[in-house]
Amino acid sequence: MGENERVQQVELLSSVNDLYGGVRVNMEHHPMDSKDFATSLKASISQWKQQGKRGVWIKLPIEQVNLVEVAVKEGFRYHHAEPDYLMLVYWIPETTDTLPVNASRRVGIGAFVMNSQREVLVVMENGGRFKETGVWKFPTGVVNEGEDICTAAVREVKEETGIDAEFVEVLAFRESHKSFFSKSDLFFVCMLKPRSFDIQKQDQEVEAAQWMPFEEYAAQPFIREHELFNYVAKICLAKSDKGYAGFSPVSAATSSGKTSCLYCNNPDIHLLTSGHQ
Amino acid sequence: MGENERVQQVELLSSVNDLYGGVRVNMEHHPMDSKDFATSLKASISQWKQQGKRGVWIKLPIEQVNLVEVAVKEGFRYHHAEPDYLMLVYWIPETTDTLPVNASRRVGIGAFVMNSQREVLVVMENGGRFKETGVWKFPTGVVNEGEDICTAAVREVKEETGIDAEFVEVLAFRESHKSFFSKSDLFFVCMLKPRSFDIQKQDQEVEAAQWMPFEEYAAQPFIREHELFNYVAKICLAKSDKGYAGFSPVSAATSSGKTSCLYCNNPDIHLLTSGHQ
Repeated sequence: MGENERVQQVELLSSVNDLYGGVRVNMEHHPMDSKDFATSLKASISQWKQQGKRGVWIKLPIEQVNLVEVAVKEGFRYHHAEPDYLMLVYWIPETTDTLPVNASRRVGIGAFVMNSQREVLVVMENGGRFKETGVWKFPTGVVNEGEDICTAAVREVKEETGIDAEFVEVLAFRESHKSFFSKSDLFFVCMLKPRSFDIQKQDQEVEAAQWMPFEEYAAQPFIREHELFNYVAKICLAKSDKGYAGFSPVSAATSSGKTSCLYCNNPDIHLLTSGHQ
Repeated sequence: MGENERVQQVELLSSVNDLYGGVRVNMEHHPMDSKDFATSLKASISQWKQQGKRGVWIKLPIEQVNLVEVAVKEGFRYHHAEPDYLMLVYWIPETTDTLPVNASRRVGIGAFVMNSQREVLVVMENGGRFKETGVWKFPTGVVNEGEDICTAAVREVKEETGIDAEFVEVLAFRESHKSFFSKSDLFFVCMLKPRSFDIQKQDQEVEAAQWMPFEEYAAQPFIREHELFNYVAKICLAKSDKGYAGFSPVSAATSSGKTSCLYCNNPDIHLLTSGHQ
């Protein structure tokens, strides 16, 4: 009995073609025996090879953790994982793979919020890297999955200090590497305008929060001695003195019909460039 | 025999404390039997509970794929994965976990490169979303793990067109969600100055490359009809007419002693704010 005849007798995995000459396997959430999976996977790989397929994707829900070892033994590698699933991929051709890379950046925000007395909203953290340093810093936080940078900045300020604020601009952003496991980090310094002024610290990770004269904030040794914090303080000062242009968000439809947020120097770009139309 | 006495008889997993009240388990790269691992893991969890530990991290190299199922059965969930390892985590306390989220963004760049004849460098792609659309677009690409945005922009222009270029500014960036699996996307529109002019297309994903009058690029129906592309074209035009300020990179030391890249309106921020010192 030839290879092809044997292959015909086992159930192949259900899959759909992707835009890049590969396939995505559909796994159901119900339990599957790892031996059955091994047999179907081998037969399916043999068929995909004959069809000249390139990348093969299998998304295994965490309940199907028993199938992970089988897939790896058949040549799959990890692509990415979320709490509830693991994405595996197998590049069939002999050539170098052109598979898209995994998400590589964690995104964070720091919020510069100044009131009309030139006082800046600062917090003292009770955990992590700044624990027990006595440093007063801007409210900061991680931008959630699917969350806009401007939404995250407003949320973090509210969570850490109870202050309602309105997003104004991204003043600058910092790129750093190897900061979170092996991942890189993009940190956006955002300017917000306060809409309320009574501080009500809620976040359990924040020890204290207050309005502090900007000069006092900037004069802290920790801020003065670290080039990056020093730069950021200067940018904030330049902004409050109106000599600085950041990026403000404007929403725009994309080619796929969704709306995305474009951050640029002037959201009124229609006016800015109308002379050229 | 009490729980504690039994626990003492099995080998505990080696681990180190982290900064957040949790532990990181050290797994070696050599093979380990899944039954032995199960026994050690159960005993270790029992000890971590007694010690009041919070998050427990286990990084399993792909060679130890046989241990993944054991860890999940003991209560671990996936945190993130890279081609060669899977990171699992277990939150011990009854409270809501405060574990850091996974990297959530893929980062891409688009390169606006204009020569002195007001011609812009454009490519036609032969795969993916723009395949067979006939659209001439800016060179684009994904920023690699650990790579700076400005480095990626220079690299992509070279790879796709053979042109040497110098990074000038980030003109704008776009935030979109659910664009790559469930991940979000940050796309930076970068301005580069060409240093060479002979196009030598190398990238196999690029069908053709050319210098095209800017007005011709912007007049393509695809660009005109899509709000986002239209905005970006206007920003580029505003920049080439010198009425627009983007963010340029400046390198600065961070508090942990590493150097990171800060993108802001004016890299000469020292001069800009020197009056306030």
